[in-house]
Amino acid sequence: MADQYAQNPAEAVPPKLPVLRWDEPPEGPVLVLLDQTRLPVEEVELVCTDVPALVRAIHTLAVRGAPLLGIAGAYGVALAAARGYDVEEAAALLENARPTAVNLGYGVRLAAAAYRTAVEAGADGERAAAAALASARELHRADAEASRRMAAHGLALLGELLPGGGHRILTHCNTGALVSGGEGTAFAVALAAHRAGELRRLWVDETRPLLQGARLTAYEAARNGMPYSLLTDSAAGSLFTAGEVDAVLIGADRIAADGSVANKVGSYPLAVLAKYHHVPFIVVAPTTTMDPSTPDGASIEVEQRSGSEVTEVTSPQVGAAGAATGGVSVAPLGTQAYNPAFDVTPPDLVTAVVTEEGVVSPVTRAGIAELCARSRQVTIS
Amino acid sequence: MADQYAQNPAEAVPPKLPVLRWDEPPEGPVLVLLDQTRLPVEEVELVCTDVPALVRAIHTLAVRGAPLLGIAGAYGVALAAARGYDVEEAAALLENARPTAVNLGYGVRLAAAAYRTAVEAGADGERAAAAALASARELHRADAEASRRMAAHGLALLGELLPGGGHRILTHCNTGALVSGGEGTAFAVALAAHRAGELRRLWVDETRPLLQGARLTAYEAARNGMPYSLLTDSAAGSLFTAGEVDAVLIGADRIAADGSVANKVGSYPLAVLAKYHHVPFIVVAPTTTMDPSTPDGASIEVEQRSGSEVTEVTSPQVGAAGAATGGVSVAPLGTQAYNPAFDVTPPDLVTAVVTEEGVVSPVTRAGIAELCARSRQVTIS
Repeated sequence: MADQYAQNPAEAVPPKLPVLRWDEPPEGPVLVLLDQTRLPVEEVELVCTDVPALVRAIHTLAVRGAPLLGIAGAYGVALAAARGYDVEEAAALLENARPTAVNLGYGVRLAAAAYRTAVEAGADGERAAAAALASARELHRADAEASRRMAAHGLALLGELLPGGGHRILTHCNTGALVSGGEGTAFAVALAAHRAGELRRLWVDETRPLLQGARLTAYEAARNGMPYSLLTDSAAGSLFTAGEVDAVLIGADRIAADGSVANKVGSYPLAVLAKYHHVPFIVVAPTTTMDPSTPDGASIEVEQRSGSEVTEVTSPQVGAAGAATGGVSVAPLGTQAYNPAFDVTPPDLVTAVVTEEGVVSPVTRAGIAELCARSRQVTIS
Repeated sequence: MADQYAQNPAEAVPPKLPVLRWDEPPEGPVLVLLDQTRLPVEEVELVCTDVPALVRAIHTLAVRGAPLLGIAGAYGVALAAARGYDVEEAAALLENARPTAVNLGYGVRLAAAAYRTAVEAGADGERAAAAALASARELHRADAEASRRMAAHGLALLGELLPGGGHRILTHCNTGALVSGGEGTAFAVALAAHRAGELRRLWVDETRPLLQGARLTAYEAARNGMPYSLLTDSAAGSLFTAGEVDAVLIGADRIAADGSVANKVGSYPLAVLAKYHHVPFIVVAPTTTMDPSTPDGASIEVEQRSGSEVTEVTSPQVGAAGAATGGVSVAPLGTQAYNPAFDVTPPDLVTAVVTEEGVVSPVTRAGIAELCARSRQVTIS
C-alpha cells in the first residue's frame, strides 16, 4: 500500500480544492487563489491581476504554506512577465514578501531565471513570459509529485518505526492540499496512512494565533473522512502523558544545512515533549525546503508578526461581526504581544526528515547534504 | 524588601477589585461576585442569592481560581444557612461543582462543619448560620494573609535562585487578586518582585482555550503597572530558546501527597521546557491546595470540559457580537475537540513549591507532608 502513489501516478487524485490556478486570457492572465483566510466558513476565490495583489495575499496569509508559496512566487513572476511589468522588480517584491519560507525565494528565482535565460537567448517578451510560466507550471507539477513521494516514504517510515500500526499522529499547523501543488507534506503522510487503514487518530493542534489547525487542517481532515480531534496547542502535553501519541508529523518552512528546522511556532515545544516521551518527531518537506546556504538554526531569520494577531482573535465569522480591524480584542487595550511566526527545532530533536528523495535519519549535516545533491531541483543563483 | 508584606500586615493593600463580597441584609444575604467571564471588557457584578446560582457561576467560570473557589464555596454554605436552605444538600452541590481544585471542597467542608458543630452545640438556625459565615470570613482573611506570606517566600526564593535580579518571569493562566482573598499565588510573587524593583518582564501565556492569561493576567498586570508581554502558549518555546525566561511561576489546583501538581492545561509542557532549558519551575499555592488524601498524580481527577471551548472562540466582545452560544466557530461543523481543563506535572519537574508556610525544594513526599503538618488549616472530615 505504501508505494501506491509513488509507483502508479495514474491513480493519483488531483487536489479537490482549487488552491491556486492560472487563468489564461480572456479571463487572464491572472493567478486565482483560494482565500485561506476565509476558510472553513467560505470558499472564496481571490483573483490576483498583478504582483502587488499577490504580495498582499502573501502578507495576509490568503496564500500560505512553504511549498505553495514557492509555486505562487513562480506564477507571480510569470504574471508580471505576461502583463509586461518589470520582471526583476516583481521578483524582488515577491522574494521579500515573507522571510522564513525558503521555497518562496526558490520559486521566484526559478521563474525569473527561466525568463532571463529566454531573454538572453533572444526571445521576445511574449516568449520569455511563456518560459517563466512553463517554469512555474513545472514547479507546480513537480511539487504534486513530491507530495506523492513524500507520502509514500513517510508511510513506509511509520511502518518501520511503529510496526504495530494503528497510528495516532499529532500534527501542528496545516500541511495538506492547501500548502502544496499536491496533497501536502506531513498531512499527506497522515492521509496515506488513513487510506492504508493505518490511521487511528489524527490529533490536530489548533495552532494559535491564526488557528490554521482548527480552520484548515480540521477542514481537510473532515473532507477526507479522517478520524481527527482538535486540541489547544498546550493540551498536547496531556496527550503525551496519556500515551496517546505515536508520532508527531510536521512540515517545515526552511531546513538549514545542519538539519535545524524552522516551522510554525509551537513546533519546537512539541519536539521537546516528543523527546521527553520518546516519541518519534518527523519532519516532512520537499527538498526545495532545504537551504544549504543557511548553515544552522541560528542563521534562520524568524518572521515577527503583528502583536494584534495575539491580542485580537480573528476568524472569518469574527471578522464579519467584529470591529473594522477584522478582529475582536481579547486583551486589555495597549497590551504588547510577542508573536514570532516560527520557531527553530535543532536536529538532535528531529527523528527523521522525510523528503521526496528519501529519508534522513538520524538528521546530520552529511545526510542533509546528500539529499540536496540527490534532489532534482535546479540550482539557481 | 522580601518580607515587607509578611512582617508588616498594616502595609498590606486590600485587593482593588471587589472579586467576591458578602452583603448583609437589607441587600442580602447575598454573595456578590465580579463576573470574570466579562473581563477585561466590563466589570460586572454577579449577585448570587442562592446556591444553584453560585454553582452556575462556578461552572461558567464567572468565579474561578483554586483559592477563590474555596472561599466562594464556604460563603455558599453560609448563604444556604442564612437563607434557611438545606445546608447538607447545598454543600454537596457546591463540593461537586468542579472536580479538580481541592480548595473548593475544603472551603465547603470547613463552613459546613462550623454550621454542624454549632447545631450540635444547641445553636438555632440563625446562630448556626452565623457560625458558617464566620468560618467563611476566617478562610477569606486567612487566604489574604497566605497571599502575603507566599509573596514574601516566593520573592526570597527568586533572590536565592536568581541572585542577579532583573527577573524575567513566565506565567500561565491567572493567579492574581482574581483567584484569591488577597493578591493571589504565583502572580503575587511577580507583583512583589515588581514592587521590589526586581521584575524585568512578566511573560504572560494567553492560556487557551479560555484566555485567562490574555483576559485576566494582562488586566491585572496592566492595573499594577507591571512590564508585561502577552504570547500564545506555544511561543513560550521560542522564549526559552532565546534565553528570555529566568523562572516559570504557576499556581496549582491540587497538589498530591507525592508533590504532583494539577494546574491549568499547558503547565506540564512548560515544566518539560523548563527542565530542558535548566530554568526553575516554581509552583506557588496555599497549603489548602495540598491534598494528602490524593497519593499521586495519577489519582488526580482531571476535569474534561466541553469541546466547544476549543471549536468556538468566546470573549466578552465576541459573545456580544456572536451567535446565541456566545461563541464564534473557528473549526468546521462537527469537529470534536479534546479539552482537558488541567494537566498534571510530576514532582521531578518542579523545582520548588512555595506555600504560606514555607518552601519545599526539592519536592518530595516528606517535604509535602511536613508543610501540611505545619499548616494551620483545620483538619475536617
